[in-house]
Amino acid sequence: MKHYQIDSLKAEALDGFKADAVYKINDLTKPKGSLGQLEEIALQVCMIQHTLTPTLNRPYNILFAADHGILEEGVSVSPKEVTWQQSYHFLEGGAGISFLCHQHGFRLMVVDAGIDHDMDYSSGIINKKVRKGTTSYLNAAAMSQEEMELCLQRGAECVDMAHADGCNVISFGEMGCGNTSSSSMWMTTLAGIPLEDCVGAGAGLDKPGISHKYQVLKQALENWPGNHSTEETIARYGGFEMVMAVGGMLRAAELHMVILVDGFIMTNCMLAASKICPEVLDYALFGHQGDESGHKRILEYLGAKPILNLGLRLGEGSGAVCAYPIVESAVRMINEMDTFHKASITKYF
Amino acid sequence: MKHYQIDSLKAEALDGFKADAVYKINDLTKPKGSLGQLEEIALQVCMIQHTLTPTLNRPYNILFAADHGILEEGVSVSPKEVTWQQSYHFLEGGAGISFLCHQHGFRLMVVDAGIDHDMDYSSGIINKKVRKGTTSYLNAAAMSQEEMELCLQRGAECVDMAHADGCNVISFGEMGCGNTSSSSMWMTTLAGIPLEDCVGAGAGLDKPGISHKYQVLKQALENWPGNHSTEETIARYGGFEMVMAVGGMLRAAELHMVILVDGFIMTNCMLAASKICPEVLDYALFGHQGDESGHKRILEYLGAKPILNLGLRLGEGSGAVCAYPIVESAVRMINEMDTFHKASITKYF
Repeated sequence: MKHYQIDSLKAEALDGFKADAVYKINDLTKPKGSLGQLEEIALQVCMIQHTLTPTLNRPYNILFAADHGILEEGVSVSPKEVTWQQSYHFLEGGAGISFLCHQHGFRLMVVDAGIDHDMDYSSGIINKKVRKGTTSYLNAAAMSQEEMELCLQRGAECVDMAHADGCNVISFGEMGCGNTSSSSMWMTTLAGIPLEDCVGAGAGLDKPGISHKYQVLKQALENWPGNHSTEETIARYGGFEMVMAVGGMLRAAELHMVILVDGFIMTNCMLAASKICPEVLDYALFGHQGDESGHKRILEYLGAKPILNLGLRLGEGSGAVCAYPIVESAVRMINEMDTFHKASITKYF
Repeated sequence: MKHYQIDSLKAEALDGFKADAVYKINDLTKPKGSLGQLEEIALQVCMIQHTLTPTLNRPYNILFAADHGILEEGVSVSPKEVTWQQSYHFLEGGAGISFLCHQHGFRLMVVDAGIDHDMDYSSGIINKKVRKGTTSYLNAAAMSQEEMELCLQRGAECVDMAHADGCNVISFGEMGCGNTSSSSMWMTTLAGIPLEDCVGAGAGLDKPGISHKYQVLKQALENWPGNHSTEETIARYGGFEMVMAVGGMLRAAELHMVILVDGFIMTNCMLAASKICPEVLDYALFGHQGDESGHKRILEYLGAKPILNLGLRLGEGSGAVCAYPIVESAVRMINEMDTFHKASITKYF
């Protein structure tokens, strides 16, 4: 396994700089603390970029797409062909993530991580395909350890491309029918939260559907007893798109980029990344708390405070990109507001 | 009193149009309901504008500023001169509301509703001054009924100016040291919520400060027993800036504009507006649930679902303007997303 070198932003050597940033934020012409979470976000971005005048440059949403063998077991209402159909659709401009990227000036990078379809890469989709969909993890590993490491590496390569293009703020999205199931499996295994609290409706299961999904996942869990490493766990339950996102997140933190975390699936990717290298969390802003059962629980486990809570459950990076203007507000706050020192205003509280 | 003519958006005659809007939203290429509150906002904006292709044009934030006689009783930590100092500062570009308006393309209209200072109107501040601050309502009415009606009318005039400039989406902000006290008085009187649940820290009172504020307001309440109309109540407890906002909201709804409601104070202005003409609520989007004690309670009373919850307590319209990109996302969603009918994608759920 690759060793990740992510700078801790909680290091004692940074205490002085942090105090400077807090002082600047408190001296802005407003009652102290009155811009709430904007002030917290501004401080975090200052720490990530190690500057009192942070900037957000050339944002990217990297959307990894792949198929899941577990779909055979009837864990999702969405038919598998939606994965490849939507992957084209994202770049054609009419999907949910498309208008959000357009609104906020995000470049949208769609990556074939393992779609079960012969894709036309002249469409602009980037070919990082590992295999045409994972193996069903009911009785076997979704992918081999070698494939898992390949995913981490390819996810990092995508981030390197964005970074080379001038990007310093990045979100990750996914498309993969069945991937709330993988997320639930990661969550229960890596965070030790009971499976029943990790399983939800996904794209739209009804009550019997959720019950069946739970039974399948419970069986899959029982079929692989024992203690396993994070690396073994993410390979066991897949999917390719999720492990690539994990690799992307770890690389983005190494590069001191601001990471916008999307909904349930991407939060579980951040969970996995943090089990590999805990410092990655210092670079994460959680965009959205979705309706998927278990999302609130895993956010609490990570000590995360999501920016939005709009009941989104689309994936694709939508919750992260939707939250971007709030992050931009925080950065504008620290750059554009006057200080009491500069403005002739009586300091108030 | 002027009679307001606000079209109800719940009228039976609109049922057919509403069904069309719901159909269009459900046919967009996403699992049904998966864009959560964006879908609800899109529907409401469609209803307000009576079109399936809504637009947001030339947004304005009208910021009413005025002083409060009750400040003599020590209900606020902020010294009174902050009201006039900040009023200049808003237009100079370095205040909290300034960067938010700049970020989201809002015109900022700063209105002197009753600042206790000789203002220089060559600064761009609009002169609608009723008087140099309200009377303390500890023992008397903050303003006369004639002044109250003048405020409603002048607030409406400001909205007419914005509307004539092409604006169809508007937020209201306030600056007025002491105006959380007036808001608490409106809330307890108009919504029947016990005073202790309506009083909070304002711009930054400590515990003894809040306790003193509560005692003052309790006394003011006891000094004016009996049942009173909404009009009498808002005149009794002021302030000028708040009554102007009420008049502005009522006028904006008459003109079928989208109204973005800011934090605690503006929510209580919407409460008062809704007591005068309940249909105004059909035009309201609540931008933000702030930390001020009682805000959650009054939002629930109004059946409001705030867009953001970022712990802001600045006022100035900041919570409303900060939420604007989410409203824009909703409008882009319905205009820019493909329908399943148009895109060649298997419908999924």
